[in-house]
Amino acid sequence: MSNRTIAAPTAVAPAVEATIEAYVATWNETDAGRRRAGIARAWAPAGTYRDPVMASDGPAEIDAMLGAVQAKFPGFVLKRTSKIDSHVAAGERYVRFTWSLGPEAGPSVVEGVDFCTLDGEGRLRSVVGFIDKMPSA
Amino acid sequence: MSNRTIAAPTAVAPAVEATIEAYVATWNETDAGRRRAGIARAWAPAGTYRDPVMASDGPAEIDAMLGAVQAKFPGFVLKRTSKIDSHVAAGERYVRFTWSLGPEAGPSVVEGVDFCTLDGEGRLRSVVGFIDKMPSA
Repeated sequence: MSNRTIAAPTAVAPAVEATIEAYVATWNETDAGRRRAGIARAWAPAGTYRDPVMASDGPAEIDAMLGAVQAKFPGFVLKRTSKIDSHVAAGERYVRFTWSLGPEAGPSVVEGVDFCTLDGEGRLRSVVGFIDKMPSA
Repeated sequence: MSNRTIAAPTAVAPAVEATIEAYVATWNETDAGRRRAGIARAWAPAGTYRDPVMASDGPAEIDAMLGAVQAKFPGFVLKRTSKIDSHVAAGERYVRFTWSLGPEAGPSVVEGVDFCTLDGEGRLRSVVGFIDKMPSA
C-alpha cells in the first residue's frame, strides 16, 4: 500500500510494558529521589509531556509537574485502566493506554488516555494526554 | 506546573473541524482527482500516516494507500463516530476522534481511533491510528 516498511500488529514487548509501568509509577512516587530515578528510567532525555492543561519538556520539568500535581491532590493515585496497546510502523513505536486519577479507594476524579511515542531504546519520546472525564470547575 | 506555555482546554476551531472532515472524506472519495485535491487540503506536504498495518509519507503515498484500501474493500465507508477532541499545548495542536469502516448500511467491520497533530495552518502533520475492532483473519 506504500513503499514504507509495513509492520504487522505486534504483541507488547516487555521493554514497552516496563517503560509504561515506570511512567505510571512516577505519578505516584512522592519521594523526590525515587521519582527522579523513575523519570530517568521511563523517559528519553528530551521527552515531552502535553495534555490540555500541562506541558513539560525534559526530566526536570516533568519532575516539577508531577510534584505540583501531587502537592495539589495529596493521596491521589494514577492507575492504568486498559491494556497497553502498541504497534510499530516505519520504525517508530506508538503506544496508548487509558488511566484514572483519584483517591486510592474511591471513585476516579479524572480519566483519560495517553498516546505515546517511544525511542529506539524503549523510552518515552512523547506523551500526549486527552481527557475523558474531568470535574467541572 | 512548568515553565512552558499552558493552554486551557479550547473549543474545536472551525479550521480543525474542516481539516478532519476533509481527511475523512478522502477515505471515501473514489474519484482520483478529487481525492488528490482533498489530500492537498487536509494534509501538510510532509504529513505522515501510521497505523498497525499501513504507513505512508506525503500526499502521493497517502493517495496510493487510500486507493488500495478502496480497491480492496469496495463500497466501504469511513465514518467519524465521535466528536473531535482537540487541545493546544506549547503551540502544538493535538486531535483525536474515533471512526468506523464498513459497508454504508451494515455494521462496521473495523473500528479505531486516530490521534493527529496539526501544523500552524491547521493541516495534518501526523495521523496515528489504533484499532479497537478488527475481524480475525
